[in-house]
Amino acid sequence: MPEKQYVTYGQSGGCGCGCGCGVEGAAKAITGCRFSLSVMADDYINVILGALKNIDTAKVWQQTDKLSTVYRGKQIHVEDAVKAFFIRAFREGTHMTMEATFSRGCPGDTTAEAMMEVDDTLLNDVRDVHFPVNCKISLYPMGIPNYMEHIAKVVNHAIDLGIYSHSTHYCTVLSCDVQDLFDYIHYVNTYCSETLSHYIFEVTLSVNSPTAE
Amino acid sequence: MPEKQYVTYGQSGGCGCGCGCGVEGAAKAITGCRFSLSVMADDYINVILGALKNIDTAKVWQQTDKLSTVYRGKQIHVEDAVKAFFIRAFREGTHMTMEATFSRGCPGDTTAEAMMEVDDTLLNDVRDVHFPVNCKISLYPMGIPNYMEHIAKVVNHAIDLGIYSHSTHYCTVLSCDVQDLFDYIHYVNTYCSETLSHYIFEVTLSVNSPTAE
Repeated sequence: MPEKQYVTYGQSGGCGCGCGCGVEGAAKAITGCRFSLSVMADDYINVILGALKNIDTAKVWQQTDKLSTVYRGKQIHVEDAVKAFFIRAFREGTHMTMEATFSRGCPGDTTAEAMMEVDDTLLNDVRDVHFPVNCKISLYPMGIPNYMEHIAKVVNHAIDLGIYSHSTHYCTVLSCDVQDLFDYIHYVNTYCSETLSHYIFEVTLSVNSPTAE
Repeated sequence: MPEKQYVTYGQSGGCGCGCGCGVEGAAKAITGCRFSLSVMADDYINVILGALKNIDTAKVWQQTDKLSTVYRGKQIHVEDAVKAFFIRAFREGTHMTMEATFSRGCPGDTTAEAMMEVDDTLLNDVRDVHFPVNCKISLYPMGIPNYMEHIAKVVNHAIDLGIYSHSTHYCTVLSCDVQDLFDYIHYVNTYCSETLSHYIFEVTLSVNSPTAE
């Protein structure tokens, strides 16, 4: 019987503290987003393939498996590609959700499997598309005792922007135009990458839900 | 213009450290799960309502909004209700995913909106139903520097159980029978509630995906 290959997260620094002291500098610059689109319709495959045909993902590294797709690279291009995919998939009247996990700075991360050597010109122009979105967000600043004040900071910014709906168990609910939501996602990723060593920002978007509030 | 009502997470302890020092003891015993089922079919509403009719949620506090449902109470009853809902919604050949966020110990939590004064007898018997599930998991132990070793601990337990598929960016992928998966979720919630002050355990389940590996 072959020996089991266990994971050794938190040991790369050799400091024995279970933290991420050993993470390489270059990996810290990589923003990633793992996302899954759920289309509540029989022809969900066509909706997804149709959206993919109408976006340009040349400036992100990507991989798709049974559960989700991951984009990795510069923050602005990862955000641009995810936003374009969601907007291109939107169809009037069709209920659709997208679970998206933005993250940066994981101690277990690698410099491989990312596209960083690209310029800053965005590839997708979806600025003129507008529709209302409901959204729940949860921010997880890792490895620090004062994480709650960073969460309060980004929630209060949503209140300032007028896109905040309410706070509830385990998440904050936003309600706004899709453009405002992605502007806010950009703000959170920027704030976190400048302020935190490692964070995860979970976002679930929903359009055309039949559920009354 | 009315004054904005900002959130004040991390300030309840009055210690000024941005942590959760002020969380009440009783709130720490409450396990919660916020979940959304996505059914990739035109009649998704019938699938969800049909599942709800066939489960007993009398031992959890619950609330549903446009984005998700939350159950709160004793760990075993929250797990029992979520598991029964997912299993009763399953339909041969229909692609379905469920995003579930288990959590306990949030410093912003309240003792309200939970059902704790119930006995330990489970209400749903779905033990004999079997089907294969793909799943991605991410564990977030909050507020401590050595969080990576707790993540490694639960991932290595999945390896020991033989349900581990692979590690990838921002998550770990499991592949197993639905019963084994919920046994594992119970193990993680138990480990975390005994070991950590505050954790979030994100689980996304998928059945009948048409995507090849």
